[in-house]
Amino acid sequence: MFKVAVLGATGYAGKELVSILVHHPYARPYYITSESFSGQRFDQVYPEFRAVCELPLEKLDLKKVAACDFIFAALPHGLSVKEVPKLLETGKKIVDFSGDFRLKDASLYPTWYGYEHSSKENLSLSVYGLPEYNREQIKKAKLIANPGCYPTSVLLALKPLLAEGLIETEDIIVDAKSGVSGAGRSPKQAYHFPECTENFKAYKVAAHQHTPEIEQELSSVAGKTVTLLFTPHLVPMIRGILSTIYVRSAAGTDESAIRAAYQKHYIDEPFIRLLPPTELPETKHVSGTNFCDLAFRLDPRTGRLIIVSAIDNLVKGAAGQAVQNMNIMMGWPEEAGLK
Amino acid sequence: MFKVAVLGATGYAGKELVSILVHHPYARPYYITSESFSGQRFDQVYPEFRAVCELPLEKLDLKKVAACDFIFAALPHGLSVKEVPKLLETGKKIVDFSGDFRLKDASLYPTWYGYEHSSKENLSLSVYGLPEYNREQIKKAKLIANPGCYPTSVLLALKPLLAEGLIETEDIIVDAKSGVSGAGRSPKQAYHFPECTENFKAYKVAAHQHTPEIEQELSSVAGKTVTLLFTPHLVPMIRGILSTIYVRSAAGTDESAIRAAYQKHYIDEPFIRLLPPTELPETKHVSGTNFCDLAFRLDPRTGRLIIVSAIDNLVKGAAGQAVQNMNIMMGWPEEAGLK
Amino acid sequence: MFKVAVLGATGYAGKELVSILVHHPYARPYYITSESFSGQRFDQVYPEFRAVCELPLEKLDLKKVAACDFIFAALPHGLSVKEVPKLLETGKKIVDFSGDFRLKDASLYPTWYGYEHSSKENLSLSVYGLPEYNREQIKKAKLIANPGCYPTSVLLALKPLLAEGLIETEDIIVDAKSGVSGAGRSPKQAYHFPECTENFKAYKVAAHQHTPEIEQELSSVAGKTVTLLFTPHLVPMIRGILSTIYVRSAAGTDESAIRAAYQKHYIDEPFIRLLPPTELPETKHVSGTNFCDLAFRLDPRTGRLIIVSAIDNLVKGAAGQAVQNMNIMMGWPEEAGLK
Amino acid sequence: MFKVAVLGATGYAGKELVSILVHHPYARPYYITSESFSGQRFDQVYPEFRAVCELPLEKLDLKKVAACDFIFAALPHGLSVKEVPKLLETGKKIVDFSGDFRLKDASLYPTWYGYEHSSKENLSLSVYGLPEYNREQIKKAKLIANPGCYPTSVLLALKPLLAEGLIETEDIIVDAKSGVSGAGRSPKQAYHFPECTENFKAYKVAAHQHTPEIEQELSSVAGKTVTLLFTPHLVPMIRGILSTIYVRSAAGTDESAIRAAYQKHYIDEPFIRLLPPTELPETKHVSGTNFCDLAFRLDPRTGRLIIVSAIDNLVKGAAGQAVQNMNIMMGWPEEAGLK
Repeated sequence: MFKVAVLGATGYAGKELVSILVHHPYARPYYITSESFSGQRFDQVYPEFRAVCELPLEKLDLKKVAACDFIFAALPHGLSVKEVPKLLETGKKIVDFSGDFRLKDASLYPTWYGYEHSSKENLSLSVYGLPEYNREQIKKAKLIANPGCYPTSVLLALKPLLAEGLIETEDIIVDAKSGVSGAGRSPKQAYHFPECTENFKAYKVAAHQHTPEIEQELSSVAGKTVTLLFTPHLVPMIRGILSTIYVRSAAGTDESAIRAAYQKHYIDEPFIRLLPPTELPETKHVSGTNFCDLAFRLDPRTGRLIIVSAIDNLVKGAAGQAVQNMNIMMGWPEEAGLK
Repeated sequence: MFKVAVLGATGYAGKELVSILVHHPYARPYYITSESFSGQRFDQVYPEFRAVCELPLEKLDLKKVAACDFIFAALPHGLSVKEVPKLLETGKKIVDFSGDFRLKDASLYPTWYGYEHSSKENLSLSVYGLPEYNREQIKKAKLIANPGCYPTSVLLALKPLLAEGLIETEDIIVDAKSGVSGAGRSPKQAYHFPECTENFKAYKVAAHQHTPEIEQELSSVAGKTVTLLFTPHLVPMIRGILSTIYVRSAAGTDESAIRAAYQKHYIDEPFIRLLPPTELPETKHVSGTNFCDLAFRLDPRTGRLIIVSAIDNLVKGAAGQAVQNMNIMMGWPEEAGLK
Repeated sequence: MFKVAVLGATGYAGKELVSILVHHPYARPYYITSESFSGQRFDQVYPEFRAVCELPLEKLDLKKVAACDFIFAALPHGLSVKEVPKLLETGKKIVDFSGDFRLKDASLYPTWYGYEHSSKENLSLSVYGLPEYNREQIKKAKLIANPGCYPTSVLLALKPLLAEGLIETEDIIVDAKSGVSGAGRSPKQAYHFPECTENFKAYKVAAHQHTPEIEQELSSVAGKTVTLLFTPHLVPMIRGILSTIYVRSAAGTDESAIRAAYQKHYIDEPFIRLLPPTELPETKHVSGTNFCDLAFRLDPRTGRLIIVSAIDNLVKGAAGQAVQNMNIMMGWPEEAGLK
Repeated sequence: MFKVAVLGATGYAGKELVSILVHHPYARPYYITSESFSGQRFDQVYPEFRAVCELPLEKLDLKKVAACDFIFAALPHGLSVKEVPKLLETGKKIVDFSGDFRLKDASLYPTWYGYEHSSKENLSLSVYGLPEYNREQIKKAKLIANPGCYPTSVLLALKPLLAEGLIETEDIIVDAKSGVSGAGRSPKQAYHFPECTENFKAYKVAAHQHTPEIEQELSSVAGKTVTLLFTPHLVPMIRGILSTIYVRSAAGTDESAIRAAYQKHYIDEPFIRLLPPTELPETKHVSGTNFCDLAFRLDPRTGRLIIVSAIDNLVKGAAGQAVQNMNIMMGWPEEAGLK
């Protein structure tokens, strides 16, 4: 059996990962860690796992990690940057969930993440783990920076359009909405049920740390610098992200060209669903799945193209994509454990 | 203007109280306290009160309390028992929201509340502030023990039946369900939105501290000891309590006798609504109001009578009832500020 | 007592209106109609109104309307256009909730509302009832076209900026999110609880009938044609609208100029709250109130200004604004019944 | 491939069944029917199934059913009683989701289901498909009456206690709470999101059609007639049932005897989880699974035993249990497709 380490197993992304791995055909969670809950079993923290996964939660111990065949690090931002260099010394392949190895330009970290990056050499080593962008590099990677949830929803929506030159690179606006699990598992006033339910709000307007991540990857596809306006919102639901993306279509772009671009790029993608012209994505339709659903409208009145994209923030936006990356890295069928 | 002190204004009951008082025809919140948020204004803690109530939150200061005309203490259990004796020295009338002065038998506190009662002399001074039970005593009271939310919903359902001897005093079972605001405002894992929404559970089965409070008051009406089985549950909604109460009807009791008993006792009660025979209470129908809605079914198959009772836990179950008590104590119309 | 007719009292806007009117200091609901529920009492349709408003629901009868002092028509789009001309013959002042008299250009109705307008002469008679735009005209109006919920949230956000020339009139994008009550009271698959809760979606992308209404009013303020891109979304909550508005700031506009413009225009407005620089609106903060909360961020990276606006769609977005209009039309204090 | 017919595939139970079957190791949905949606594909009705199950929905055609290897009938009560006799003529094994073949005493149908039973001979043929009660009979059955959701939650809680004589058969009270999917997929006023969310209510008090079903099976275990008081409630959540069951413990029964009884009966049951003494079931812990979680409290004050039971109403309460039955009937591992 292929032994997997899950570091930080009790956050929502870690939990979702364990949930996928217990049904994976080739791999099994073997060593799972939690600093806060070490000493308890996984099913004591999450009783839904009683009789399903009753592994003990341990404090992170590099020797035990080294005894595994593969490493998932679902640690908080700012901690991964410290732990991953040590994990790399084990020689095992790693998928890191944090933002700590996603930005190639280390100078962005103080501004957007609030810390000075201490492992710059590994920024070039890491591969941004969005299979629809980087599948070939992922195959050979030692360290995957698993994409952020918001970036996944935006990047999948825009790649074919930028690659085919169908939209302008200026003035892209992303209005994104996420379920509350995106805010993590720690209880806070803002996510206390009576305050959070029956409420809707924007947060970190034009200031969210996923902004430079999206810009970096879009710029890479476009071949020039893309600047983004990104506004996230909080939806009173557990899981799901819906991004409404406003772009300017290039001169001469029509609906059939857009549809053709999506089909060309995504025809063989197992987890992208382009919806028929009259339909629109809903987060419920991708809930619990690794799918990204996409639809678009071209507005003749303003010349704007609107793309709507839906994913499950914990699956395609985190744990599902991480497993997809592992499958690619190990040469397994890409959908293993994900359908 | 009649100046009111609200001690502990930032809990949910305190907030609801402020919300009622800003529209009260005779009284106004004047001095409001919070240990956690002192130094901020009320509308900084609750932005919905911007331009509505912008009073500063202060730490509790007895001199400032003494400058008010009336005192509401919405302090936690175990703290009220220490503060209320000092508040009484101001000579002002007090409505205390906590459980600390509800039980006449001080020996129950260690078992049910986990502390030794330090102000036993005031247990006999205090009046249990359920107007439908104790209106005459409330008029003359110096210290009101404002009833618990669950007890209010149960006591209003049973008083006419016990008073008229229509039910047995043995084997009363209360299965109660409350919205999450009943658990208070402090963020905790169990009330974190992603854990609390789309979930339902029982808690403190046969062990909730409201049990002896209900028993005390029912026994008083029945004229003999009533023992209760009480199970509370948590509903994924903000506010509301629905209690389903199973009692054994006395020999010969029929539906018309039950209906007549309710009508006799509640015909002049402004906040009790007995529903027509085919309807049942729903928490939404009493949300934001001081009403208690009641309905019953007599089951010929088992001889059991089932009463269903609904209140808003923050209004009739807390702040609304507190204001009703103030109105009675001050000789104002009982519905002032509550309709 | 000032007698008010509410035509279409059982929709959510009609219900909210009744709820406000029963506590209004000068007016009372007197004659309420419903085609679907005539023959029942209001509290049979909405049991929360038992002992609060037990008026009978009747079919629309012009003679009975004429016996009232004021008319609110909360009828569906397409029906108002037929009924309002007859209502006008009573000589009573009217506030119409529908979109049927909001657009001055009758030629827009076939495209956006799907019908040919049959009462064009009254389009010029009607006054668009947004007090912050048209207070003086409202005072003298015979027929008020009460604004749409989305338009209210957008127009209040943009008026001071357009009036002061601080933003460009090109390329305004509105990404709006509404609670489910905005979709009305009729049960439909999309709003069935198990399908609607734990879901988020866009709808009518770049095709919502509120688009020309917003454009008309913005153009009026700007003094030139404004074209809008408008995308509404459905939030799994009962009430509330949050609009995130993306505009291009004019050359030289800075934050202090924007704040000054809001303050200049809204300093005396009783229902507009401009938030401090670090805060953002949340729908819960305006829930059940007639307030519109506003905040903005100027993004130096893209030169875009983002304004966030929150209202309660049933209050400032419908019934509250309607009552505000009545108060103005009758010369009563504008906040009567609304605080 | 083992071909499965799903009759009535677009109700919530049918949908859940399809969802399980697409991942079943031995069987596949092959022929799926819907009277309302015939002519559409399954993924047009449920877009989450795009690229997962795109079978056409057809009107029921017995010849096509006969071409399948196994039949699930997820038809409404009152329709199954007419269709099942014809289905039996195909000679295929059938699991029927309705209540139409659950009651052995045909005379109960007019009272509890409102119709005269037209297929009485098949009432004795059918086997009540609760594996923990009837596994041996299920193995040989031609027609399974798949248990109701509420009955499943109650029967699993009580079997060991009745079988071991640890509780009295008199005065059993069940207070049950269900998510809204239990009410089916048809839009109705009571389940319209704005009316259903933030609300809690009882319904069909002492009058629910699952009452005689529970009594029948409990009586069978107890060896004498058991009469039940059963009250269902509606919880604002999609899925899950929690039953709080009040029984009288037999003289001398203590906690260890109760725990021992559960362990004796359920030690080898793959889908029953008896919780440790300090824990209580929550619906979220069984959501999406075929588990039934059980816990109990013995109340020394009243002599009552309280058992709390949680299942997913759509899985162990419907589709999961149906697949479990198929697995048993076909001699496959009982957990196939269910873990």
